Amino acid sequence: MVQTPNKQLVLLKHILRGYPVAGEHIDVQESSIDLEAPLKEDQALLKVHTISIDPFLRGPMKGVDAGGYFPPFDVGQTMYGYTISTVIKSNIDKFKQGDVVIGITNLEEYAVISSSHPFFSFCIVRNDIKDSGLPLSYYVGVLGMPGLTAYFGFLEVGKPKKGETLFVSAAAGAVGQIVGQIGKILGLRVIGSAGTDEKIAYLKQIGFDAVFNYKKTNNMSEKLAELAPEGIDVYFDNVGGETLEAVLNNVNRFARIAVCGMVSTYNAEKDIGVHNLMNIVPKHAKLEGFAVSDYFHLEEQFTKDVVQWLKEGKLTYRESVAENIDEAAQALVDVMYGNNSGKQIIRVSDPSF
Amino acid sequence: MVQTPNKQLVLLKHILRGYPVAGEHIDVQESSIDLEAPLKEDQALLKVHTISIDPFLRGPMKGVDAGGYFPPFDVGQTMYGYTISTVIKSNIDKFKQGDVVIGITNLEEYAVISSSHPFFSFCIVRNDIKDSGLPLSYYVGVLGMPGLTAYFGFLEVGKPKKGETLFVSAAAGAVGQIVGQIGKILGLRVIGSAGTDEKIAYLKQIGFDAVFNYKKTNNMSEKLAELAPEGIDVYFDNVGGETLEAVLNNVNRFARIAVCGMVSTYNAEKDIGVHNLMNIVPKHAKLEGFAVSDYFHLEEQFTKDVVQWLKEGKLTYRESVAENIDEAAQALVDVMYGNNSGKQIIRVSDPSF
Repeated sequence: MVQTPNKQLVLLKHILRGYPVAGEHIDVQESSIDLEAPLKEDQALLKVHTISIDPFLRGPMKGVDAGGYFPPFDVGQTMYGYTISTVIKSNIDKFKQGDVVIGITNLEEYAVISSSHPFFSFCIVRNDIKDSGLPLSYYVGVLGMPGLTAYFGFLEVGKPKKGETLFVSAAAGAVGQIVGQIGKILGLRVIGSAGTDEKIAYLKQIGFDAVFNYKKTNNMSEKLAELAPEGIDVYFDNVGGETLEAVLNNVNRFARIAVCGMVSTYNAEKDIGVHNLMNIVPKHAKLEGFAVSDYFHLEEQFTKDVVQWLKEGKLTYRESVAENIDEAAQALVDVMYGNNSGKQIIRVSDPSF
Repeated sequence: MVQTPNKQLVLLKHILRGYPVAGEHIDVQESSIDLEAPLKEDQALLKVHTISIDPFLRGPMKGVDAGGYFPPFDVGQTMYGYTISTVIKSNIDKFKQGDVVIGITNLEEYAVISSSHPFFSFCIVRNDIKDSGLPLSYYVGVLGMPGLTAYFGFLEVGKPKKGETLFVSAAAGAVGQIVGQIGKILGLRVIGSAGTDEKIAYLKQIGFDAVFNYKKTNNMSEKLAELAPEGIDVYFDNVGGETLEAVLNNVNRFARIAVCGMVSTYNAEKDIGVHNLMNIVPKHAKLEGFAVSDYFHLEEQFTKDVVQWLKEGKLTYRESVAENIDEAAQALVDVMYGNNSGKQIIRVSDPSF
């Protein structure tokens, strides 16, 4: 029985409010696994190459039921999330040795998945990506869950029309940068906000028409009035809170607010209320939440468009890559603070293909 | 020159927050008018029969621009609102002596309207109502602006489907009672809230499936979970604030929240924030504001349906009628407190038809 080291991102302690601390609430710990041990008949063993660090991971860290989202992580257990991996061995029919798998697994170097697990349906064999010529990590980014979220949230909920004004918050993030660039492709005027000057520079570089650093802006409502003198038609909301209030002071008639997430509230010590919701009444504006899972069945259209835009150079995608699983806990904390630039990825191992 | 007394509802003082006080912020004052004096060439003189007291009147009392709603009332000037009246004399082509007019005019016994006034387009000749066999006041209620609001807000924004669960707040009010009854006509399960036991009794009487007095309910979120065990599909929101938060804890996937108004915020000393908006994301729920003016062009369909429902006895409409214009200021304050029962009307004079 040979034990192989197996590093894992583990939840140490639930945290309902406030920012998590690496080492206190989450940490990377070394366990071990016998890669030769027999699997159960409904299991497959995966070697993980890429871990995706996404804001939604904050929810299950709270330890409370989130009403339809993922269930809480257990204390002392390995957290789960999106990964890209290769099958080492498998007792599951549709997973063969060497297959590339994208999906939700434990966040560790070697992950066992089970066909009876509730998340199993999220795990998909995607051998096509071996020859795609695109970075592997794109498949948990611009071509993965964040890409799907951006594409369908913007198109199906935001219903953009050429010539309209789009505002995107967290615009340099995993989802925001895609939304803004699709906005430009479709002929909208695109405004973005982010929290560092370096992100702001990136947004200008990829074609945003107007940008601002919200951390250096005293009055976001006035700033938006200045940058969007004709008002906002579509707001792609990644942050909620004060930014949403500022938008509600600047919406046009029949504006659509596609609510993807409200990251400003995830780590807040106190719930931040939205105080001017009444503004949607005279404007006949709409706030609509959505989850990427509503659109999984439309993935083919998404992949076709986005691969084409990437190949034509109309869409660029910035990632922040941590080169070692040891960095996973701090990387997640950094995402919560917005310290990362672009999609946060952990490179765990290199694939052999 | 014979002067005729002309009582008017006058704004004495703007009030941004808190509840208005009759005699301090608004009052009925007696002026006079020479009914024989010549009119300008773009004017008509009306004898007012009915004044409609609506919650939206609170907005222009604030003295600040409300972003797309009606402009503020001027201090010392007669307030405006919906009225029903008869033309005494007219220099405007489309208004003839004896015509019945429904629309927005000054709230006084004798109102002069001008074809150059921004609200003139709201004034419509409606001689058909002379022979309708229905109470005159219905035309500023169930067959007027509140009716249109209920009908189109519920049908076009709420998009109800048979078998779904509808919740209506301020359910015994001018709009809410109509929404709930249309919900029953369309085969939904209908839940309503109101602020007095007497209103609750009325809601049961007109067929609501479940009702509660929110002033006697400690935890509205739990109350709604109990009364709507299968969740809420459509919420017709008249109140905002805490009630909206309670609904957001109980919405089903793809729920529609039609936001008609947020009366809980109109008189609040402090803005009441909504703290759980993030709930719309996993549920793919939607909040959509609307204004009745979006649907004026569809009035024919509305009138046909509602008149039929009234005549068939499927729809009943309760009004609270003050018999004298002297009561107008206190009646408006009462509407703000929810002390009225049903649509608040002021009977100013009897028509001769």
